[in-house]
Amino acid sequence: MTQTFKLVLAYDGTHYAGWQIQKNAVTVQEVIERAVATIVGRPVRVLASGRTDSGVHALAQVVSCTVDTRLGAHEFMRAINGNLPFDIRVTHAEPADATFDPTRDAIRKSYRYVIQDGRVHDVFERGYCWFVPGDLDVDAMRSAASHLVGEYDFASFQSAGSYRVSTIRHVDQIEIARRPDDSRFIDFAIRSNGFLYNMVRNIVGTVVQVGRGTHPPSWVRDVRNACDRQAAGPLSPPQGLFLVSVEYPAS
Amino acid sequence: MTQTFKLVLAYDGTHYAGWQIQKNAVTVQEVIERAVATIVGRPVRVLASGRTDSGVHALAQVVSCTVDTRLGAHEFMRAINGNLPFDIRVTHAEPADATFDPTRDAIRKSYRYVIQDGRVHDVFERGYCWFVPGDLDVDAMRSAASHLVGEYDFASFQSAGSYRVSTIRHVDQIEIARRPDDSRFIDFAIRSNGFLYNMVRNIVGTVVQVGRGTHPPSWVRDVRNACDRQAAGPLSPPQGLFLVSVEYPAS
Repeated sequence: MTQTFKLVLAYDGTHYAGWQIQKNAVTVQEVIERAVATIVGRPVRVLASGRTDSGVHALAQVVSCTVDTRLGAHEFMRAINGNLPFDIRVTHAEPADATFDPTRDAIRKSYRYVIQDGRVHDVFERGYCWFVPGDLDVDAMRSAASHLVGEYDFASFQSAGSYRVSTIRHVDQIEIARRPDDSRFIDFAIRSNGFLYNMVRNIVGTVVQVGRGTHPPSWVRDVRNACDRQAAGPLSPPQGLFLVSVEYPAS
Repeated sequence: MTQTFKLVLAYDGTHYAGWQIQKNAVTVQEVIERAVATIVGRPVRVLASGRTDSGVHALAQVVSCTVDTRLGAHEFMRAINGNLPFDIRVTHAEPADATFDPTRDAIRKSYRYVIQDGRVHDVFERGYCWFVPGDLDVDAMRSAASHLVGEYDFASFQSAGSYRVSTIRHVDQIEIARRPDDSRFIDFAIRSNGFLYNMVRNIVGTVVQVGRGTHPPSWVRDVRNACDRQAAGPLSPPQGLFLVSVEYPAS
């Protein structure tokens, strides 16, 4: 019985070379496909809402696969989890339309990027945030980021290597705040109808320059208007980045 | 110039065989002593408020060392951090009296033990909590733990291997609650004037039996009164345990 499933995955990206299958490195896609193949007894392709880079984490990556099985969605999820390493879990599973394409059908994505400032890095969060020694000015960062909310050409924030036809995206929301219960951490949350290659990490690297006092907030508007990657700040490291959610049209 | 320092350490215990130096395994004490020796140019003994077991974490372990250095407390802390791996940090340093003994002088300690229940373990917290599949009854656990607050003989909760002269301790407080912002996690916090070997993990293993419905809350009073380790529940795993703080008399 051929069925298509929509699965939600959480993974700790620390030990993976990102989502997409590649030679000579273990990826999340490869590990998931192997687990599904073990259950259904034949090779299976698993598609995701998009790639995550090496070291990037996911709270809720959305993937799909079409398989020949009699298992219901919940049994299928349990069977996959029984074949996965502990740093990857299926957290939700449901039947999907055979035409469901997690990449093309996605209408909005949310990411979180975690920064820690101060003098001493937190030993538990070292693999899950970017430690920036010193004191960041969060108000200045918020003011800087306000220039990136709306529909703009984000070419300045696209890394080389994976060009898109259009570099225009609509960023709905950016929220930057110190954690109420632990002010050493700054959560940067961004939601958009799509993201260019390394866009979140390039934006964070740029906004942190403002937080450090290297540039005024208005500099980010100039960077945006330049439509040139050379104008932006450095790429921030991968381990602070989490794919938080992927939205699809209500069906 | 001979000086005694009181240092506060945070460490992720995942990759260490506990605090105390031993043969054929890397311990936190060994790594700290090596870092201090590098700075002062000779072997140095570092004493702690108490041992932590293999895999147990510390948010604020208190240690002392007496060294010949001209460095002030803050410079000394920075120098040690420059010689430590990323999973151990000195978070605070201050001059101490030459007679300061972090073990003997401690008047109260606090530990936290983190439990996750539900169906799917959290991929990020897997090294920092005990995953108990199913649904735990936190009210029953709280009621069970109330039998352990006060001055009692805790012999039932002492593992073999490191006997103390007296097994009487005064537990000030036990608080058990689901995390307000993420109800999958249950934080178990305990404060006492001292702890027996594996006491927190034995208490948690026992209280979780009540949370599972295996025994009623009053069973924990019977376990306590038995003064016999065989009466208690199983030892809970180390990775959920955090040494949170150590208190000393105001000097």
